Amino acid sequence: MVHMTSGTGTRLRTFERAVSVRIAESALTLNGVLRMERLHRWLTVRKLKEAFDVRRIAFEQLRKWSVAPDTGNLAHESGKFFSVEGLSVAVSDGPVKEWSQPILNQPEVGILGILVKEIDGVLHCLMQSKMEPGNADGVQLSPTVQATRSNYSQVHKGRPVPYLHYFRDTAGHRVLADVLQSEQGSWFYRKRNRNMIVEVTTDVEVIDGFCWVTIGQLHSLLSEYDLINMDARTVLSCLPFSAAGIASLFSFGGDDFRSSVIRSFSEDNGSLHSSGDVLSWITESRVGNDVATKLIPLDETTGWRRTSHAITHESEAFFDIIAVDVSAESREVDGWSQPMISPRSTGLVAFLVKRISGVLHVLVNARVEPGYLDVIELAPTVQCSPENYGHLPPDARPAYLDDVLEAPEGAVRYDTILSEEGGRFFKAQNRYLVIEVGDGEHEEVRRDFRWLTVHQLTALIRHSHYVNVQARSLVACLHSLSCGVAGGNG
Amino acid sequence: MVHMTSGTGTRLRTFERAVSVRIAESALTLNGVLRMERLHRWLTVRKLKEAFDVRRIAFEQLRKWSVAPDTGNLAHESGKFFSVEGLSVAVSDGPVKEWSQPILNQPEVGILGILVKEIDGVLHCLMQSKMEPGNADGVQLSPTVQATRSNYSQVHKGRPVPYLHYFRDTAGHRVLADVLQSEQGSWFYRKRNRNMIVEVTTDVEVIDGFCWVTIGQLHSLLSEYDLINMDARTVLSCLPFSAAGIASLFSFGGDDFRSSVIRSFSEDNGSLHSSGDVLSWITESRVGNDVATKLIPLDETTGWRRTSHAITHESEAFFDIIAVDVSAESREVDGWSQPMISPRSTGLVAFLVKRISGVLHVLVNARVEPGYLDVIELAPTVQCSPENYGHLPPDARPAYLDDVLEAPEGAVRYDTILSEEGGRFFKAQNRYLVIEVGDGEHEEVRRDFRWLTVHQLTALIRHSHYVNVQARSLVACLHSLSCGVAGGNG
Repeated sequence: MVHMTSGTGTRLRTFERAVSVRIAESALTLNGVLRMERLHRWLTVRKLKEAFDVRRIAFEQLRKWSVAPDTGNLAHESGKFFSVEGLSVAVSDGPVKEWSQPILNQPEVGILGILVKEIDGVLHCLMQSKMEPGNADGVQLSPTVQATRSNYSQVHKGRPVPYLHYFRDTAGHRVLADVLQSEQGSWFYRKRNRNMIVEVTTDVEVIDGFCWVTIGQLHSLLSEYDLINMDARTVLSCLPFSAAGIASLFSFGGDDFRSSVIRSFSEDNGSLHSSGDVLSWITESRVGNDVATKLIPLDETTGWRRTSHAITHESEAFFDIIAVDVSAESREVDGWSQPMISPRSTGLVAFLVKRISGVLHVLVNARVEPGYLDVIELAPTVQCSPENYGHLPPDARPAYLDDVLEAPEGAVRYDTILSEEGGRFFKAQNRYLVIEVGDGEHEEVRRDFRWLTVHQLTALIRHSHYVNVQARSLVACLHSLSCGVAGGNG
Repeated sequence: MVHMTSGTGTRLRTFERAVSVRIAESALTLNGVLRMERLHRWLTVRKLKEAFDVRRIAFEQLRKWSVAPDTGNLAHESGKFFSVEGLSVAVSDGPVKEWSQPILNQPEVGILGILVKEIDGVLHCLMQSKMEPGNADGVQLSPTVQATRSNYSQVHKGRPVPYLHYFRDTAGHRVLADVLQSEQGSWFYRKRNRNMIVEVTTDVEVIDGFCWVTIGQLHSLLSEYDLINMDARTVLSCLPFSAAGIASLFSFGGDDFRSSVIRSFSEDNGSLHSSGDVLSWITESRVGNDVATKLIPLDETTGWRRTSHAITHESEAFFDIIAVDVSAESREVDGWSQPMISPRSTGLVAFLVKRISGVLHVLVNARVEPGYLDVIELAPTVQCSPENYGHLPPDARPAYLDDVLEAPEGAVRYDTILSEEGGRFFKAQNRYLVIEVGDGEHEEVRRDFRWLTVHQLTALIRHSHYVNVQARSLVACLHSLSCGVAGGNG
């Protein structure tokens, strides 16, 4: 069952083998309980089974949602789930210093949990095929559990959430990751979800719509068009992945790209900046940016127009607030309607990467987004919708955007279209890229950027409020590259 | 100049020696540039020089501060410094589920910075003698810089803040710590300060009111009555202190108390819970407590009464808001008046500690305070004003309080009265205690408590929002115990 390009380490089959080795082994295994072809076929069947009918409707056609007469806010009759409100923002830096915008307010913390289990000696993840109204192309693989508290406390009186008990009571299981992580700070106000990975050794019944896949299979699917959903990506980024794990199974040591990626996951030195210097830079970035935000009535956002079917910025940029009606079968409830955010264009999310003394470094940006709890989080080098910059002056163009847009083909190490949370965002797709630049390029960077190793990012991902959701997705893509799973031209 | 009880390691005199060794060396040095007696005499002289006249006044006598007619909030005419507002609080757990209270709102981040420099081969800290209106007993030693942004941006047109430039531009210096840390979450709304330690190698002019002291001298003074101020303690707790540093200078290995403290600073295993399990417990505590807070007009707090001179709780417990007038010489400005928080009684701040397989563990509490940015922070085992519990039912009595109050004399390892920030709090004193319990005691603890090693706490102190200010003070006291500086009966 284990299929590996190269293996050098011993392979103890006990529960107690170092977690990192077991993760690496699973990451190098492309055929698990299901072979890859079977997995694809299963996804095709699920796509048919979970077919959805999603229709755009007028706000006044929303069922159980209403527009508050005094504020214009959109809220569910239970007071739960989320609401669409307004946010006024004032920042000390940047091309636009003050604005207001619609924002999703979802104060309750949900659980995104992947259950893992050793099957025939290899770790497998229990993944769920999931249709969401915002998905661009049918079902995606999602974590075992993806539930808001309103879901699992049964506010909408639906079916109970399967496998939830493994995450609500972890006694007797092994917790591989458990951390609150933020989500899109431009669209959500201080939202975060609990990202969990829990290992069990007891029997687990696999119910319809779920299947066991190896980490290698997940990485392989991640390089395909829009198959791994955002929630699965952020949980994957929290896996305690390490260079030592891979090194025990795979010989590397050349000056090739893949070896530089593996070294970048290593805790040993070789980073351009010490971890103390990185923390100090983050502190400086938090103190150096003044960001004042305030929730306001949705009706008081300026520059936004409401029609019967959409709330739209007068520049026709950014995103719209829309309403959709969903008729579906395989879901906690049998049909519903809800408001969503619908971005105006496809975004670009890219890391510039560079080998420094044989160790891959990624150029991260200390980025302000108004919905962050603590001013800035570390973001990809470029994260924007290029079309939004049409109405702004040229010096407002995002830094390093041209390095990404004009990268030669051979420099593109990863290139996949992935989408953001389809339960809140309607066809919100981003092109995720890893672009390599030459040794001598960008030695001087702007003060809000730093070259970090991947290990420096993964060490921060153990804590909340450091690495944003787009950068976490790219960290999952970098895992793939270390395992030799090609993405784009990589 | 170096005076040590025992030294085993090599003593390289270069800048590049491991920071932890240099810190340990300074911590074991009780006579630095100034001998201990000289230091005490210097403090006595400063006490005379910086004498203050602090008088309680009526709110309407405050200069440059006023009561907003619509809210009753107390604010400075500049809109800077801080304001006294109201906070309404609803929590899911605890004896009291809803209340409102006055709170200090100070959104701007200040700098608490200690400048360090190797003098005659030993690290010294540049400390400042500082009088604050709330001090119970004259001057205290404070960090080199202790400045709000209003101070250093000269809102009150005073003298410039000395040494500030070392912390505002660290280029060319070595940053040993730089992290945003919270302060009292019961009295401040989401306040935090930037805790910094910066090492310089260039010449530093020592101006009047400042002097160079070793870390060992600071620890020795910390065990005395109320000499090291809160700001100095929190910065000290951020020092990258390690067992390896001490081990290279001091032979230990027995099963005595001090050896167990030193081992507790070690990163190597020996902890009851893995760091992953600790992070998971913290996440669970954040998700498991619902805390809703909202700033409200001070006039709308219920149960609080305002007279001409004080705002007081109707139970006469907790604290008062008062106003003071200060006439002083050695200060950025020559006299001022301000509101302050005046606690009703002396508090108790204590760690229960226990040797587990020869490694000291401390019993920490995941504690909710309404002013925390992220729901809970790790707090001492007991942190309360025992007198506040008179009007509450007996089961509302703080956990483990009796273990502290009834501890046999030999179990008291540290016992000192220290006070909280004298610039905001009027004679807010706490008795800081470290109490050892026997091996077999408290093996089962409440779910909001865990036995952690000191290293597990110091690793978390590198990040924001994990360890509260009272626990950080106790971590500084535990440093002292590892260096053999006695505290109380320790």
